[in-house]
Amino acid sequence: MNEEYKSLLAITMGDAAGSGPEIVTKALADPDVRAVSRSVVIGDAATMRAALEITGAPGEVKVIEKLSEALFQEGFIEVIDLHNIQLDRLTRGKIDPMAGKAAFEYIKLATEMALAGECDAMVTSAISKEALNKAGYHYDGHTQLLAELCGVSNVAMMLVSGKLRVSHVTTHVSLLRAIELVRPERILTVLRLTSEAVRQMGIDEPRIAVAGLNPHAGEGGLFGDEEIKYIAPAIEAARREGMNVTGPLPPDSVFLRTSEGQFDAAVAMYHDQGHIALKMLGITQGVNVTLGLPIIRTSVDHGTNFGKAGKGTADPTSLILAIKLASVMCRNRRRLS
Amino acid sequence: MNEEYKSLLAITMGDAAGSGPEIVTKALADPDVRAVSRSVVIGDAATMRAALEITGAPGEVKVIEKLSEALFQEGFIEVIDLHNIQLDRLTRGKIDPMAGKAAFEYIKLATEMALAGECDAMVTSAISKEALNKAGYHYDGHTQLLAELCGVSNVAMMLVSGKLRVSHVTTHVSLLRAIELVRPERILTVLRLTSEAVRQMGIDEPRIAVAGLNPHAGEGGLFGDEEIKYIAPAIEAARREGMNVTGPLPPDSVFLRTSEGQFDAAVAMYHDQGHIALKMLGITQGVNVTLGLPIIRTSVDHGTNFGKAGKGTADPTSLILAIKLASVMCRNRRRLS
Repeated sequence: MNEEYKSLLAITMGDAAGSGPEIVTKALADPDVRAVSRSVVIGDAATMRAALEITGAPGEVKVIEKLSEALFQEGFIEVIDLHNIQLDRLTRGKIDPMAGKAAFEYIKLATEMALAGECDAMVTSAISKEALNKAGYHYDGHTQLLAELCGVSNVAMMLVSGKLRVSHVTTHVSLLRAIELVRPERILTVLRLTSEAVRQMGIDEPRIAVAGLNPHAGEGGLFGDEEIKYIAPAIEAARREGMNVTGPLPPDSVFLRTSEGQFDAAVAMYHDQGHIALKMLGITQGVNVTLGLPIIRTSVDHGTNFGKAGKGTADPTSLILAIKLASVMCRNRRRLS
Repeated sequence: MNEEYKSLLAITMGDAAGSGPEIVTKALADPDVRAVSRSVVIGDAATMRAALEITGAPGEVKVIEKLSEALFQEGFIEVIDLHNIQLDRLTRGKIDPMAGKAAFEYIKLATEMALAGECDAMVTSAISKEALNKAGYHYDGHTQLLAELCGVSNVAMMLVSGKLRVSHVTTHVSLLRAIELVRPERILTVLRLTSEAVRQMGIDEPRIAVAGLNPHAGEGGLFGDEEIKYIAPAIEAARREGMNVTGPLPPDSVFLRTSEGQFDAAVAMYHDQGHIALKMLGITQGVNVTLGLPIIRTSVDHGTNFGKAGKGTADPTSLILAIKLASVMCRNRRRLS
C-alpha cells in the first residue's frame, strides 16, 4: 500500500442550474481534498468559470480533452468540457431539461472513464431528478442510472455519516412493495456488498448489524414474522460465509448503536429506516455510496439546492466528504487487491 | 394562571426487580422536580427504602394511606404502600411475575386517583412488559393498559425529546398492518390529540407536520399512493377544523425539521418512523406521553434496565423530564380550561 498515492477522480459537475458547480469549486479548493486526490471535472467549462466567479473560490478553469492531459497543478480546475450548457439560456434555481440532459452526459462519461480504468473512481455532484426526467432520462436517481450504465442489477445504496454506515435492502419503492422485497436472497446480497464496501473503507473485519422490518424486530413474531421467515435466514447464510453479522435488531435503536461505534455498518430494510436515522445526524454530513458497481462511486447526499443556486452560499461539506471517502476506498481497494 | 401552582402527581414505582424504584428516588431528590411538583409514590414502601439505600439519594420513606395525608415535606418520599413485594423473594435484574403484578397494581391505583381528580396527573416509572405478561396481564405496554383502565379507545403515543414531539398513528403492530391502519379517520384523530397535547405543553397555536408513509412521501404517487388517498384528505379535514397542519412531508427530513423548531410537533405514520428519529437524539432524553386519555399521563421512555438494577447507577433523566412535562401540562390545562 502506497500511503502517498493520490486517487485519480472524475468529478461530475451536476445540474448546471443548481448549486452543483458551485460546491465543486469550493470542494476542489479544500487543502484536505487536494492532499488525498487528483481530480478532473466532467462538466461544462463556461458553467464552471461562472461558478468560480459566483463563489469566489480560488482557481482557474483549464480545459483538457482527456484525463491523460491533466497536470493537477495548484491553482487550476481541469475540466473535460462537454460544451453542453448555453449559459445565456440558463436560469439558475429553475428546472431546465438542458441542464438535466447535460448532467446525464457528465455521469455517462465519468462512468465510462471509471469502467475503462482511466480514473480510480467517480464522485458525483448534485443533480435534479426532475430535470433528468424532463430531459427524457427516466431514472429514480443516480443509483439506478449507474446500475444501467454499468450493466449490473444487484446494487445497493449506502449512506455514510460519521460512524454510521447504512446500506439499504430497498429504496425507491412504496413501503408496501418494500415489505414484499425483504427476502433472504436480496438481504444476503446487500450483506455481501456491505461487507465488501466497509472493507474498502478500511475496516478489515466489519461488524454488521441488521435491522428488523417490524417494530421491536417483530417481538418474537408478535408484530409481524418477516424477521423469522426472511431476515434471520439471510443472517444465518451470511454467517456461514464468515461474516460477523448481528440481528435482526430493533430498528429504533440499531442505527444509534451503529453511530456510536457498536457496529461498523447497519443494514436497513427500507428507505426511511436508514434515511431518517442518518438525516437526524445532520443533513449536510452525509455521503451516498453505490454498492455493487464494478467501479467506486460516491456522491453528495443532497439535491441541487436550487434555492441557493447562483448565490455562492451552498455548503460543500457533503461533496468534500464524498471525495475523501472515494479516496479512502481507492487506497484500500489497491491494498486489498 | 397561577405560576406558583405545584402540580400534584402520582408517581408509579415501576417494576421492583428493575431500576424503576431507583430512578424514582433520584428524580424526587432533584430540586427542579420539587420546584414544580408535589409527588406521591404509588408503590411498595420496603422496595422504596431499599432503593434509597442502593442509590444513596437523600430522603426517607414515609408511608401514607391516601394522598390527602401527604405533607410534601423536604426530606421525605411519601409512599402509598401496596405491600405487594416480598423483598426477600425478589431477585433484582430478573423478570418476576410478582413484580409484574405489583407494577400493574400501582398503575391501576394511580389511574383511578387521576380519574377521580385526587391528583393532577400520573407519571409512570419503568415496567417490564414481560413481567406484566407473566403475571397474566397481556398488554403491549403502558398505552394499551391505560386506555383500558380509562375506558377509552382512541389513544395515541407521543414521544418528546427536546423540541421534537412525535405522535404516532400506529405503534405496536406489524409494518404491513400499520400500512392498513393509515386511514383518514385515524390520522385526523391523532392530529386532534396532538394539537390538544401541544397546547397543554404551552404552545397555543401549534404548527403540526405530518409525515408521509412512503419514501419521499410517495413522490406524487410514484412510490405508493397512501399520501394521496388517505393522508392528504386527513390533513385537509384538520385544516377545515382550523389546525395549522403541513404535509404529507418526506419522512426522512420532517423529524429533523421538527427537532430544529420548524414545527411544534410531527405525526408519524408508524412506530419506527417516530422512534428512530427520536432515539437518534439520545436514548435517555425521551418522554412518553399518552394522548387521548381523560387524564394527563407521562412516562419514562425506556425499559426496566434490568442490567443496572440494584447498582444505583440507572439514569433518572427521562423520569425527571417526564415529571417536569406532566407539571407543564397540568399548569396549562388549568390555564386553558
